[in-house]
Amino acid sequence: MKVLIIGGAGMVGRNLADTLVAAGQLGGKPVTELVLFDVVPAVTQGTDAVAVRVETGDLSDRATVDALIAPRPDVIFHLAAIVSGEAEADFDKGYRINMDGTRNLLEAIRAQPGYHPRVVYTSSIAVFGAPFPEAIGDEFFTTPMTSYGAQKMIGELLLNDYSRRGILDGVGIRLPTIVVRPGKPNKAASGFFSGIIREPLAGIEAVLPVDDSVRHWVASPASATGFLIHAATMDTAPLGARRCMTMPGLSVTVGEMIAALGEVAGPDKVALIKRQPDATIRGIVAGWPENFDASRATEMGFVADASFQDIIRAHIRDMEAAG
Amino acid sequence: MKVLIIGGAGMVGRNLADTLVAAGQLGGKPVTELVLFDVVPAVTQGTDAVAVRVETGDLSDRATVDALIAPRPDVIFHLAAIVSGEAEADFDKGYRINMDGTRNLLEAIRAQPGYHPRVVYTSSIAVFGAPFPEAIGDEFFTTPMTSYGAQKMIGELLLNDYSRRGILDGVGIRLPTIVVRPGKPNKAASGFFSGIIREPLAGIEAVLPVDDSVRHWVASPASATGFLIHAATMDTAPLGARRCMTMPGLSVTVGEMIAALGEVAGPDKVALIKRQPDATIRGIVAGWPENFDASRATEMGFVADASFQDIIRAHIRDMEAAG
Repeated sequence: MKVLIIGGAGMVGRNLADTLVAAGQLGGKPVTELVLFDVVPAVTQGTDAVAVRVETGDLSDRATVDALIAPRPDVIFHLAAIVSGEAEADFDKGYRINMDGTRNLLEAIRAQPGYHPRVVYTSSIAVFGAPFPEAIGDEFFTTPMTSYGAQKMIGELLLNDYSRRGILDGVGIRLPTIVVRPGKPNKAASGFFSGIIREPLAGIEAVLPVDDSVRHWVASPASATGFLIHAATMDTAPLGARRCMTMPGLSVTVGEMIAALGEVAGPDKVALIKRQPDATIRGIVAGWPENFDASRATEMGFVADASFQDIIRAHIRDMEAAG
Repeated sequence: MKVLIIGGAGMVGRNLADTLVAAGQLGGKPVTELVLFDVVPAVTQGTDAVAVRVETGDLSDRATVDALIAPRPDVIFHLAAIVSGEAEADFDKGYRINMDGTRNLLEAIRAQPGYHPRVVYTSSIAVFGAPFPEAIGDEFFTTPMTSYGAQKMIGELLLNDYSRRGILDGVGIRLPTIVVRPGKPNKAASGFFSGIIREPLAGIEAVLPVDDSVRHWVASPASATGFLIHAATMDTAPLGARRCMTMPGLSVTVGEMIAALGEVAGPDKVALIKRQPDATIRGIVAGWPENFDASRATEMGFVADASFQDIIRAHIRDMEAAG
């Protein structure tokens, strides 16, 4: 089968591509061709069994998207997006890529007669906006507080409608914040959730800008890959017309994260966390969802991490494997 | 002040235009110019005090919309839409007018520096999709089951985001089914809700294609005009970032509607209703919302009809006034 990953150079896309190449199959069918599309070249290497083709381009260019869809991939993962901060800073770019780009993809599929691929779309918990109930249920309304969240929700509505119309077979998954992200610290407001685990484990100091009581909704990189693969292979009949779901995750406080780090890696690692309260980051984080009741996704077979300790242990294994 | 009604030739737009011309003011400020835009010419006549300008065109043409916005109307009512049945039959036309047309309007406003008009947008209860709770609350999620509903919800998301960004001051109102619609019977699946009142009052037989137990969410034409005027003049600060609301209405069964007709107009009118069950219409209507808890709109000062009897009496008065 042919698989296309739009956003194949990002952290989530790369993990997925690496996993598909290593497995050589998706849902029991051999993956013969894997196309990785992004604005920068993806790095995943192919094998004799799985040919990897790397392409770059702009999702807002319809001709580019038409060319990408012309070979009729059986499964399309649409992970590409202008992230929250950039979509807020650049109004036009956010709408052009996140809204028009997604629509270009759906329209390019619609333009191919008799073609009906599985489309897995990564949405975001940014479709929700404060004030929140104690746990956000599957039927809670979506009132985004960022342009990114609005664009992601528009993508959900389009995915649902194009699926209902029989144009494609869509599944939309709202990912939790991915922790522990590998790599260098970044300036995202959510960056410290990974940083307070990743940096101490690497023997480096980490800054904690919020209180220990701050609660957040997280999943490991491996869980994210698992969600994507399940979304690509699941029976979509039970979803009916409601194709988009909040993925299961762990609702943990910063204090619980730090305690888990101590339990897994010892108190000397915890000592590397420096508390430097930052009013700006505190304010941003205060508007984020803390907890979900993601029953529907769980019923549909999506599986969350078992514990935050497991998330830390998985990160340690990944780092050891990467040398 | 200058007022623009996009969709000024439709039933709701015409009622609003007539009301504004008669009142000569909106929120206590004199209306000096009223522009009525639609695909066909609007019929409302101006007065010495209120100049009415009638324009026709296509909302999906950005240059047309730019020209419409160039005089910087203080209040814009955006009522224009490809209706549910047509948007379902013509995929491209529905998205072109309902989604791209709405976006053209918001973008034309954004293109004018320092301009920040009140924009009243009519959404629809079609943003909701079955299965429903017993009464749909203000925080129930939006899962449209038609392309029209998806397009209306995308408009809501855009209106919210452009308002949050300070580009405009939007209020989105989800209208109930308008009963009693004046005029001839039409082929809309919901047409009988008006027909079983309107036709008997005119001494004509009416067909009832569903059971007496069918429950529906309705408001009078006068209430719809009242909602629009309140949305144009209310203080939007209490809305925060959640600019769109389900309007209050009456949840009444067909049996209750018929009993009210008997009470107001007598049993000989009721005798003109012929029960001719229609499986297709029954099926369509079964997927529609029956009841809402529209507390938020009520708290924000929107007022529903007091009773279905009042709705019938108002229709009788309108017909007498129209001769």
